[in-house]
Amino acid sequence: MAQFAVQVKNEKSEFEILRVSENDSVAAETDVLAVEEPLEIRLGYAEDGKFIHKAISITMRTPAGDAELAAGFLFTEGILQSKNQISNIKHCGKFPNNQNTIRIDLQPDVKINLKKLERNFYTTSSCGVCGKTSLEALLTAGAEKVGFNKFSRISAETIRRLPEKTRAAQTIFDRTGGIHAAALFDYAGNLIDVKEDVGRHNAVDKLIGKQFLDENLPLADKILFLSGRASFELLQKAVMARIPIVCAVGAPSSLAVEAAKNFNITLLGFVRDRRFNIYNGIERLEI
Amino acid sequence: MAQFAVQVKNEKSEFEILRVSENDSVAAETDVLAVEEPLEIRLGYAEDGKFIHKAISITMRTPAGDAELAAGFLFTEGILQSKNQISNIKHCGKFPNNQNTIRIDLQPDVKINLKKLERNFYTTSSCGVCGKTSLEALLTAGAEKVGFNKFSRISAETIRRLPEKTRAAQTIFDRTGGIHAAALFDYAGNLIDVKEDVGRHNAVDKLIGKQFLDENLPLADKILFLSGRASFELLQKAVMARIPIVCAVGAPSSLAVEAAKNFNITLLGFVRDRRFNIYNGIERLEI
Repeated sequence: MAQFAVQVKNEKSEFEILRVSENDSVAAETDVLAVEEPLEIRLGYAEDGKFIHKAISITMRTPAGDAELAAGFLFTEGILQSKNQISNIKHCGKFPNNQNTIRIDLQPDVKINLKKLERNFYTTSSCGVCGKTSLEALLTAGAEKVGFNKFSRISAETIRRLPEKTRAAQTIFDRTGGIHAAALFDYAGNLIDVKEDVGRHNAVDKLIGKQFLDENLPLADKILFLSGRASFELLQKAVMARIPIVCAVGAPSSLAVEAAKNFNITLLGFVRDRRFNIYNGIERLEI
Repeated sequence: MAQFAVQVKNEKSEFEILRVSENDSVAAETDVLAVEEPLEIRLGYAEDGKFIHKAISITMRTPAGDAELAAGFLFTEGILQSKNQISNIKHCGKFPNNQNTIRIDLQPDVKINLKKLERNFYTTSSCGVCGKTSLEALLTAGAEKVGFNKFSRISAETIRRLPEKTRAAQTIFDRTGGIHAAALFDYAGNLIDVKEDVGRHNAVDKLIGKQFLDENLPLADKILFLSGRASFELLQKAVMARIPIVCAVGAPSSLAVEAAKNFNITLLGFVRDRRFNIYNGIERLEI
């Protein structure tokens, strides 16, 4: 049985950051972040005597294991049943993102139920358009750099207190321990709102959606606090709502940092135990 | 400006569980879990003089704040710009899941760019088909109850050691601290493989995809270990690969527990600090 070998991109990426300790000392360090990039999964198959291929899914993933990811996805979705249905697996994107598209070609005699495929998949959020980078897609959607208010800065102590304030306001987490929170604060550290959801993108959508329905947008001079990790998708939502500062209890992904740099967002990670890392935008902090 | 009031479903759900302590004592308790259910977001708009509506996204969410979630999603995706584009927001699903579909109707004069909408959205994983429950959708996809091997059980001590074994085998987490892991073990607790990804569903797809490409499926008498929370989506993947035991460091969602009960999966949560909770399937454990 043929082995399907595909190239491997970087799984980790290095960034220059500032580490802020409990006593306000700041150290410049090199931090290693998990790489996050879009992968388009395409399926090639015979239909009415012609060989066609079509995009099935785009997911934000860490490169490496793309062939396994695509095969595992098609299997667990019930589209493929065994390896011998596959004739070939290869990266097939266009330069410079040629490893962000992978195609699984099926043997000519394999019949797939496309109707089931269309019915069973659901969309989550937006990302890259095929052949473009995710950041370019954001620009296409009308996103602009977030402005800098030079009269308004936030203190390190305000940031250190965000986790406890958010936790105190959470109603579901206390009893379940199994939910993400997104909270909105003003620059003085006053809690405006907190939303909870099993999906972290949903918690942010609820938080921003409430402000949208209350006609409070754009959210300039506000802080978005995330109880988990900061992915590209969450930074994208902050950019759309014009939130200048994003703080996460967990690590950011590589693409989240790139989005922060591109759109002038202050991004803080590992905001816990009275310490935090600055990935971008120290100019909004009193440090 | 009109307020859009929609009904609120339960955010939390109670389950009878068994709590296994460090010294093997077992206590029956009532545990409260975050509710996870699908929400279909539909958009109603005028096109060529006719009013139509169409499904835009299905997301697995915690009920409550559905109007805000839908509005926030459409805003952060760049489809809506202000509240006054909206004429109405209401739940519009069919009994008994009538609160799992929400529709945002736009004012007749609002033009939306459907092409952008189609290009920008990407799919992640499968879930419910409109009007059916997610569990029914899994059955439709050909999923069956996972069998029980009465000669093969796993000890509590084997389970307690899974977190440290997984952590020791992770290569990206050590340096980044920002990545999910999925690991595969046999019933004796021997590590077969570990995969890492910024998306937990991707880590599981990579893990199962590797076994699929190595023609090792079905994965009976294997254990799936998850570094985070257990969602419905991850249980669904275990069911498809016929993995009988799923262990998670974090909490399961309500729908993950229901999937475990439906498909006869042993589901353990909060597997950390030498303790764990049994949400379903004690018959596969030596306790």
